[in-house]
Amino acid sequence: MENLSENLLQYISNQNSHEIGALFESHYAIDIALALQTLDDQDLEGFCRLVGNEQLASVLEEGSLILRKRIVNLIDAERIVSVFTYMSSDDITDIVGEMPLDQRKKLLRMMRSSDSQTIEKLLGYGPDTAGGNMTTEYIALRNSLKISEALNKIKMIGPKTEVIEVLFVVNDSNELIGTADLRDILTTAGDAELDQITDKNLIAVYPETDQEEVSQLVSKYDLKAIPVINHRHAILGIITVDDIIDIIVEEYTEDFLMVSGVSKDETIHSTLPESIRRRLPWLYVNLAAVMLASFTVALFEDVIAQVVALAVAMPIVAGLGGNAGFQTLSVVIRSITLGEVNLHNGWHLVIKEIALGLIHGLSVGVVAGLVLYLKYGNVYLGLIIVAAMVGNLIIAGLFGYLVPLILRQLNIDPAVASSIFVTTATDVFGFFAFLGLARLFLPYLL
Amino acid sequence: MENLSENLLQYISNQNSHEIGALFESHYAIDIALALQTLDDQDLEGFCRLVGNEQLASVLEEGSLILRKRIVNLIDAERIVSVFTYMSSDDITDIVGEMPLDQRKKLLRMMRSSDSQTIEKLLGYGPDTAGGNMTTEYIALRNSLKISEALNKIKMIGPKTEVIEVLFVVNDSNELIGTADLRDILTTAGDAELDQITDKNLIAVYPETDQEEVSQLVSKYDLKAIPVINHRHAILGIITVDDIIDIIVEEYTEDFLMVSGVSKDETIHSTLPESIRRRLPWLYVNLAAVMLASFTVALFEDVIAQVVALAVAMPIVAGLGGNAGFQTLSVVIRSITLGEVNLHNGWHLVIKEIALGLIHGLSVGVVAGLVLYLKYGNVYLGLIIVAAMVGNLIIAGLFGYLVPLILRQLNIDPAVASSIFVTTATDVFGFFAFLGLARLFLPYLL
Repeated sequence: MENLSENLLQYISNQNSHEIGALFESHYAIDIALALQTLDDQDLEGFCRLVGNEQLASVLEEGSLILRKRIVNLIDAERIVSVFTYMSSDDITDIVGEMPLDQRKKLLRMMRSSDSQTIEKLLGYGPDTAGGNMTTEYIALRNSLKISEALNKIKMIGPKTEVIEVLFVVNDSNELIGTADLRDILTTAGDAELDQITDKNLIAVYPETDQEEVSQLVSKYDLKAIPVINHRHAILGIITVDDIIDIIVEEYTEDFLMVSGVSKDETIHSTLPESIRRRLPWLYVNLAAVMLASFTVALFEDVIAQVVALAVAMPIVAGLGGNAGFQTLSVVIRSITLGEVNLHNGWHLVIKEIALGLIHGLSVGVVAGLVLYLKYGNVYLGLIIVAAMVGNLIIAGLFGYLVPLILRQLNIDPAVASSIFVTTATDVFGFFAFLGLARLFLPYLL
Repeated sequence: MENLSENLLQYISNQNSHEIGALFESHYAIDIALALQTLDDQDLEGFCRLVGNEQLASVLEEGSLILRKRIVNLIDAERIVSVFTYMSSDDITDIVGEMPLDQRKKLLRMMRSSDSQTIEKLLGYGPDTAGGNMTTEYIALRNSLKISEALNKIKMIGPKTEVIEVLFVVNDSNELIGTADLRDILTTAGDAELDQITDKNLIAVYPETDQEEVSQLVSKYDLKAIPVINHRHAILGIITVDDIIDIIVEEYTEDFLMVSGVSKDETIHSTLPESIRRRLPWLYVNLAAVMLASFTVALFEDVIAQVVALAVAMPIVAGLGGNAGFQTLSVVIRSITLGEVNLHNGWHLVIKEIALGLIHGLSVGVVAGLVLYLKYGNVYLGLIIVAAMVGNLIIAGLFGYLVPLILRQLNIDPAVASSIFVTTATDVFGFFAFLGLARLFLPYLL
């Protein structure tokens, strides 16, 4: 990597376009794009001047959002349009979609009208939908074609498409009716009809289908590409498996970060103001939740004033409850992502969580109770903490199970909001149960 | 789905093998496998009797671990061996690997020796390595072949392989030297040499390479399959992109669950004893951590006895610290997974986390301080909580950033152990800072 950046810099300062072109023979475009990220604008502009349109297109396709923006700002609109002719429609759409509106309009006017229409259509789909992820570079063949004709078409169109192992087969009314495997085309007699080797068990999605659902289908059926169709069954585009991998990574990262109150868009390289903007609101939400817990404690100030040991022991009850709730939460959120569970299919699972809360509460509570007894020499304090922990871990199981499912039912992403509700519940209930029991049995604690 | 199960049951009770065979024409094997899971052993045995070996193979390839075991136990060893001839080596290895040792040996003895050797070799690789995920069904072609000869080989071997869009090219010493794109083979003159269209920028892994690294390479370079080679550069197998998707899902799920103290092997359908075995140890670890926090509070019993408001306010300091630490933690763990960060490359990132702690601590602390001032009418109490929160959120940022990176350096999975260290640090420091400041300024609080 180091080397590649140095080579690039050297060739740029020597204006050696031949050597730069040769780099694209010996390296992957993604690695060149990563090396380009380290250059300053002047060198990057030099690179753009020295490199051909096809190579620049490959860098734009592989580069990060930031690199794309920088390059697009360094070259003029006419060149952008020429570079676009080497790129697939989904990548062009991503780039055009990030431009200011006036620049976008100018570019679209300069493109061939068939191309600009495609891009404008793709721009209309939400970024998290099937339409927002599809490309229009696929091979669709009429089912009445002879195998030999189909093969000729594949040879002709193949180099411009993203997938050739799977061909999409349409009927005379242009409806997608199935897929054909290139293996079968290669091994079937040339005068047979394509229809005969078409697999009619079609898995397809609509442009508005959520990308998470799309990725689940591709993963379940081990597809190399999934077609996107409209409601008249005409094929609009395809989503290829490499884009599906990006979607899966994005969706999982989202779950992982959001459960901790971090926006999915924050990375380690976010600037300080960006990080503040993304994290601080969540800390305020959390402050409100913790205040609620704090006010619960305030209800029992008189009790604590008499038995200070309670202030020492109460973080144990709340802490363990939060932890147990998080365990249940994670298992349930994962199951929701996998489509394994919903609010209606598992009351026996609620029973299981209650049983877990009981058993875990007793197991952990007895140890905590024993330690407190040894420290303060009061057996009732020990018994009270056991009871409070059993109660709180049952609450943790109940809330950990029900909160994400209820949020899902309300169409709120369970990864975002579940943890705050669950930990607030275990904090508030934990303090209330423990301190409430202490008030009830106060004479025995003094 | 409901329908498919019912149809299956009906055809099984009528012993209608023709209709069962037809189901495989109209449905995907994965859906049939899912429907079979709902049948009892007697019906499943009936199904196995009525269905052909090729169809049974497709169900075994797609079915869950449990279904595979049930089917293997219902049919005799000879039939298993026949069914295996329709399956790819990685799936056979998975099934054989789950068998008791004596059954496994018996089966391997019954297989063709070339096949059993392949399986035994694959069984030798760890399940989380490239070797443990590879299949031996690929197309490797000599680089000196003419294009027309290559195409004939592809037509011959293609139907038995998992990928045909990418062909693997070897030299005369059987070293893997690159890949060829089927598009180029289809469009190049038949008398050209395969070597001419071979892309020699080879991305390959060794059998012992960790599966996470493999999935990162496939995702970065948008590969359809990645070859596994030995140290003499001979190709041993390939890993296809559908298996890569499974790996990615597995790795992310692992991170997601482990950060909450749940084993990656727990699902919503785990039995009660299983869930206890997986979760309870972590709760004990957590108990130890919370005890540490509790003992910190115990150091200040005398102070709390005089100012009970401290017991009310202290959960706020600890709670916010834990939350802020979790935010940093999640961003860092995600960046580690993406290979973006290590212990040596970002001291400016530590500075950023400290700055975030300062700013967030002030922002949230001032609100908390104001509320406490309004409630208790003591301005010093408010000032103390601001100071404690600034300190604790800086600690949260520092620990949230450094703990996962240090664990990674020590080869401990940061997703597993980070959160316990970070929350313990914020609990202990939060209580210590807040109550310690309170002792220092005790006269002003009374």
